[in-house]
Amino acid sequence: MDFSIPSHIQELRQAIHEYIQEELYPLEAEMLAHGWSATEEVLQAKREEVKERGWWAPQMPKDLGGAGLSLLEFSHISEVLGQSPFGHYVFNCQAPDAGNMEILHEFATPEQQEMYLEPLLAGEIRSCFAMTEPMNAGSNPTKMSTMAVKDGDEYVINGRKWFTTAADGAAFTIVMAITDPENENKYQRASLILVPMDTPGFQLVRNISVMGEPGEGYASHAEVSFDNVRVPLENLLGGEGAGFAMAQARLGPGRIHHCMRWLGICERAFALMCQRCAERELSEGKPLGTRQIAQAWIAECRVEINAARLMVLQAAWKIDNEGTYAAREEISLIKFYVAGVLQKVLDCALQLHGALGMTDDTPIAYWYRHERAARIYDGPDEVHKMVVAKRILRNYGM
Amino acid sequence: MDFSIPSHIQELRQAIHEYIQEELYPLEAEMLAHGWSATEEVLQAKREEVKERGWWAPQMPKDLGGAGLSLLEFSHISEVLGQSPFGHYVFNCQAPDAGNMEILHEFATPEQQEMYLEPLLAGEIRSCFAMTEPMNAGSNPTKMSTMAVKDGDEYVINGRKWFTTAADGAAFTIVMAITDPENENKYQRASLILVPMDTPGFQLVRNISVMGEPGEGYASHAEVSFDNVRVPLENLLGGEGAGFAMAQARLGPGRIHHCMRWLGICERAFALMCQRCAERELSEGKPLGTRQIAQAWIAECRVEINAARLMVLQAAWKIDNEGTYAAREEISLIKFYVAGVLQKVLDCALQLHGALGMTDDTPIAYWYRHERAARIYDGPDEVHKMVVAKRILRNYGM
Amino acid sequence: MDFSIPSHIQELRQAIHEYIQEELYPLEAEMLAHGWSATEEVLQAKREEVKERGWWAPQMPKDLGGAGLSLLEFSHISEVLGQSPFGHYVFNCQAPDAGNMEILHEFATPEQQEMYLEPLLAGEIRSCFAMTEPMNAGSNPTKMSTMAVKDGDEYVINGRKWFTTAADGAAFTIVMAITDPENENKYQRASLILVPMDTPGFQLVRNISVMGEPGEGYASHAEVSFDNVRVPLENLLGGEGAGFAMAQARLGPGRIHHCMRWLGICERAFALMCQRCAERELSEGKPLGTRQIAQAWIAECRVEINAARLMVLQAAWKIDNEGTYAAREEISLIKFYVAGVLQKVLDCALQLHGALGMTDDTPIAYWYRHERAARIYDGPDEVHKMVVAKRILRNYGM
Amino acid sequence: MDFSIPSHIQELRQAIHEYIQEELYPLEAEMLAHGWSATEEVLQAKREEVKERGWWAPQMPKDLGGAGLSLLEFSHISEVLGQSPFGHYVFNCQAPDAGNMEILHEFATPEQQEMYLEPLLAGEIRSCFAMTEPMNAGSNPTKMSTMAVKDGDEYVINGRKWFTTAADGAAFTIVMAITDPENENKYQRASLILVPMDTPGFQLVRNISVMGEPGEGYASHAEVSFDNVRVPLENLLGGEGAGFAMAQARLGPGRIHHCMRWLGICERAFALMCQRCAERELSEGKPLGTRQIAQAWIAECRVEINAARLMVLQAAWKIDNEGTYAAREEISLIKFYVAGVLQKVLDCALQLHGALGMTDDTPIAYWYRHERAARIYDGPDEVHKMVVAKRILRNYGM
Repeated sequence: MDFSIPSHIQELRQAIHEYIQEELYPLEAEMLAHGWSATEEVLQAKREEVKERGWWAPQMPKDLGGAGLSLLEFSHISEVLGQSPFGHYVFNCQAPDAGNMEILHEFATPEQQEMYLEPLLAGEIRSCFAMTEPMNAGSNPTKMSTMAVKDGDEYVINGRKWFTTAADGAAFTIVMAITDPENENKYQRASLILVPMDTPGFQLVRNISVMGEPGEGYASHAEVSFDNVRVPLENLLGGEGAGFAMAQARLGPGRIHHCMRWLGICERAFALMCQRCAERELSEGKPLGTRQIAQAWIAECRVEINAARLMVLQAAWKIDNEGTYAAREEISLIKFYVAGVLQKVLDCALQLHGALGMTDDTPIAYWYRHERAARIYDGPDEVHKMVVAKRILRNYGM
Repeated sequence: MDFSIPSHIQELRQAIHEYIQEELYPLEAEMLAHGWSATEEVLQAKREEVKERGWWAPQMPKDLGGAGLSLLEFSHISEVLGQSPFGHYVFNCQAPDAGNMEILHEFATPEQQEMYLEPLLAGEIRSCFAMTEPMNAGSNPTKMSTMAVKDGDEYVINGRKWFTTAADGAAFTIVMAITDPENENKYQRASLILVPMDTPGFQLVRNISVMGEPGEGYASHAEVSFDNVRVPLENLLGGEGAGFAMAQARLGPGRIHHCMRWLGICERAFALMCQRCAERELSEGKPLGTRQIAQAWIAECRVEINAARLMVLQAAWKIDNEGTYAAREEISLIKFYVAGVLQKVLDCALQLHGALGMTDDTPIAYWYRHERAARIYDGPDEVHKMVVAKRILRNYGM
Repeated sequence: MDFSIPSHIQELRQAIHEYIQEELYPLEAEMLAHGWSATEEVLQAKREEVKERGWWAPQMPKDLGGAGLSLLEFSHISEVLGQSPFGHYVFNCQAPDAGNMEILHEFATPEQQEMYLEPLLAGEIRSCFAMTEPMNAGSNPTKMSTMAVKDGDEYVINGRKWFTTAADGAAFTIVMAITDPENENKYQRASLILVPMDTPGFQLVRNISVMGEPGEGYASHAEVSFDNVRVPLENLLGGEGAGFAMAQARLGPGRIHHCMRWLGICERAFALMCQRCAERELSEGKPLGTRQIAQAWIAECRVEINAARLMVLQAAWKIDNEGTYAAREEISLIKFYVAGVLQKVLDCALQLHGALGMTDDTPIAYWYRHERAARIYDGPDEVHKMVVAKRILRNYGM
Repeated sequence: MDFSIPSHIQELRQAIHEYIQEELYPLEAEMLAHGWSATEEVLQAKREEVKERGWWAPQMPKDLGGAGLSLLEFSHISEVLGQSPFGHYVFNCQAPDAGNMEILHEFATPEQQEMYLEPLLAGEIRSCFAMTEPMNAGSNPTKMSTMAVKDGDEYVINGRKWFTTAADGAAFTIVMAITDPENENKYQRASLILVPMDTPGFQLVRNISVMGEPGEGYASHAEVSFDNVRVPLENLLGGEGAGFAMAQARLGPGRIHHCMRWLGICERAFALMCQRCAERELSEGKPLGTRQIAQAWIAECRVEINAARLMVLQAAWKIDNEGTYAAREEISLIKFYVAGVLQKVLDCALQLHGALGMTDDTPIAYWYRHERAARIYDGPDEVHKMVVAKRILRNYGM
């Protein structure tokens, strides 16, 4: 066992941390006050800077223009990127594009890669992933109504999805649709299909108003409909019926990304909270940090962040060394555990800021409302707990 | 001991509940999607309806045009009003106007009442209350920088306040300012002064962006500045140095109002959550409500709401029967207890709605973000706990 | 609504409180250090004193030698009795005898009452109640293996029970046994039967070692076996098949008793904790109670005890006014809620006593270990939550 | 970073785990029912077995007869030993002897080592450590009343200590006493002194009754008094005034030992709980483990145990690589964090066992009551949180 972080990763992390503090933190106020679109242009310039520094798409292989980091290595970077709401976007490793790049890299044909993966890697287009359906519980991924029926050399797709993140302005979506409804194995009924957003019959019904924000551009969660959408059979991604398996493969490392991003948020909120405790005077010479409850929260947040980080790093290490399947228990565990830590840290940070914590003068309130979703997306906490417990109980004969 | 609710209150509550469900619930979607101003006009019409039905300002004495309810009686009504974000506003018992009416009624001169209280009671104007200062911890109310200095027959006021709720569009504010900085009793240094918003030197610096919403009109929290604002000495409210005492008197019943409003929110969120549990199918014939964790949350929310309600009603009963001072322990206790219950119930309701809970398709997310402030305003939970514990420990000789 | 306590109950409560403080508290050290039997003799003398003062069996009607209090009135007394581990026993309203008196009073024949109820009321004998079975989950009361088969004019009983509280030294038990295994209504399969402990075939297998204490006499939880135990048919209590209904009737007020006893424990632990906080110096002139976390716990315990008490009193009031059936939701709710408050208060009290809290120099550690069972007996918390949620969800069509 | 455990440690851990399961688990019932002394004799035989297998004192260097494991290596073993209440004792690495061996090894003179360390290492005698005082808060280690005054070539010691664990039957104690009360640095006022238990003036006042158990032999916590106890100056351990520094040095690795022992308890309780969930049927074919709340607890316990273990191993790794001082933040953090996890796991395990959990038929209730002290000894959680937060806030200028 060795808990040391390799020095080249330490250095890279440090350099990126400084860049983010100096270049991205100052842009946050504008976004917090006036929405994502207000900063879109300046972020494009930052993306170019990042490319020039060789930090672009750090999670992708070098031959694809990335930095070629292992999952464990990228985890350390992802945490630093998470400290600003802009980090992952500026480094081109933001959801849902990062996940789409991964499955396109692993499962797409050369033609598909040329058409979809390359411009995505280059940051020329954005993409989305249409899976969740409004009328079906997301916690039961096999309950799905969207159908893709073969008709000659085309798929005809009908259905409705929502929470299609970043759909507004995306060039294409990957949609999960049932292609083999009678398959006895319900996990082999669905496929993933590539659909350009300008395909006739596809409609962005609405950007869903989420936590008081109508949503726009990259910062959107859309409801979309497929009304006799026709795409060539070549738009099938991977094998027919392999939709769940690929989505699952996408989710494994994706959860590591999310968890480390959340830990970045935790660290930023923790720093803001400590700063506030050290500076805010309750009375002459008595800052908030002299209060025992503030101290208790600081200590509890510190230990839970540390614990969560070790858990995620170990899971990433296991995926790197033994594969996603071997690490599936760890992946389920960190999903709900880190989401819980995130919520606690944000709650403490907000409370210790008092009224200021409610305002958009710090990013805490932004995360407080938007990252509430961490306990819901990719499977709510309660489902992960159930799944992992059932697996454990099998060892005891249940 | 008698836990029964008098039948005339039961009937009034029932009638108002039906009115709110039928007339106000349908207006919520518009506000949740497009902000408070989108509904302002239709709300005025509703206010007229409420006046016609004789429900206007139910907390105020009959001779002032109210319904003349005792605090305990009004508590039952306030809970029902709280079930919609519009309830208190439409019935003219919303913060901060309700509190201002109370102190104007109790402490204002006939001239002041004519100029300020009467149009407020009539719903012709709105008002605000400027107390909290950005550079001073609200949890220490004696640490205040805003000064009001006598100059001839005028007060000259200088200072800066924030979280002056509903300042945007208000006709006047009551400002707390230091008038006697050298007074040995630090609780007698400040006074309350009436300041029309159009007084030269007064400026609404900004509506503070709170939880992603810039704020406007009634739904605003403003930062305001007083720059050599001059008002006649007659604008002093109550006695000089009596600012804290009056603010405190305002806070006692005010907390009952808040707590019962929160319980209304709890009941609405609870109903939405049960509805969702009964209807949302996880698989064929298996609604969410068959899940044991959903059941546990329902039971826990039910018992905590019930407990909280009894606590608040008992505190209201005690204020009615023994006065605010005698009930000060109960008032401190319910403040943090009910705020905690509110947060738990909203969290459960949101989680059980899954992705839908994050959207503005229900009012849950609205309350989730805005009512987070319940644990902060009127003194953060932690301060109330400290205050009440110190008072208890005095009985043990500490 | 009226939250005032009638003055005659206030006075009775005060008098009993003083008696317990002066006469019973001093006996506790002996019991805590050397077990229940060490104090048995002196407790008998105290029981005689209580009889003389007219406080004996306060929950029973006056014509049976009790004080004739309503359930709500007795609740106030039960809380005071609960402040000492000896209270209920010395006043002859301890479990399981109190519950047995209630069902014997309500359901027993005059002959049964003469033989079993009268000596119980007089405090001449003790009794027990044999329901829980080691091999069947207590949370599913219809899953029961003990059988009572008619053979001529006798029942022949076979089976095994455990957690038969106070069996050691009892004169008789009431046993729940299946008499009609084929009944379609599984709630009508069992009956209650009176069995003197000296009946051949009945055996006290062992006093179960609970929380490190082997158990003896009244302070015992026994495993007992029925091996062809024969009793006359006249020993049937109430109707055949009415076992569950009677046990349920016994449980309703029984839960009020338990909950108020727990609140008595809470109040005693709270007082010990405050005393400790006021007296224990961390450094010169800085007692433990100056610590903000101690203060927070004091405030939280105070509010939760108050809330719990109001809940229980309301449930008692509802049973008195509308009957047990009408109050079944309240009864389920208080069961788990008050048990939770009890555990929290004891945990805080223990922690604030530091190492002393672990010792038997105070009664806190005694309650900490034994009252852990509060969350388990009479149905574990989780089962009550499930039951109450299912009932609520029926209103929403589930 | 490398999370793999070296194969030789894996194998050693596996072998010891099997030994403990086969040889020690079967002895537990006797101890749980009849106390520690009932098993003392058979445990001596087991100790000889362990010596023969080369597993004796695994935390000590090889040249002293130990297994020479690093702290990180021993951590893995300590966890396995913790799975039985007998583990550490049988392997001669139990508190307080293990800690005493460490300071004797590091600080004692050759003569002291010969007289005290060697027989301790050989398992021929037991020892104790007298630090905590009944009248002074243990959370403030500099507040101490016991004095050691030089008189000629002797120290004359006067004072009273309690919670001197395992004093009953010990051959000697190490006592912390003030030797330089006027030293300006209050951390340099105390010294450690070796005192044979048969020294005149030393008295074991009582074995303190803890959680209902009077205590005896190794399983005792004693109150002891020093009444003009005279020992030669050569009995000073380390330098005069170095008492705190040595105690602190003893505590660092000692906390790793405790934490890993607690994690062993967690793993055993977790296994018992899963076993119970898989086997206990609530109804035909529906074991307890099908309940979602049981599943949630299993998942939560699993993730918290895993997180806690990684935290402790990292702290051990840091002590091994950078020393105790560098790891002091980690040491404080794990102390309260792991204690909290321990309490949660035991609480869940007990609850899922229902009534059985309250009995001494499993070791759960034993740990539930005795390990409650984990949150108190070596500094209560609240003090550790305060200390660590103050250290963190120093980085923010407070």
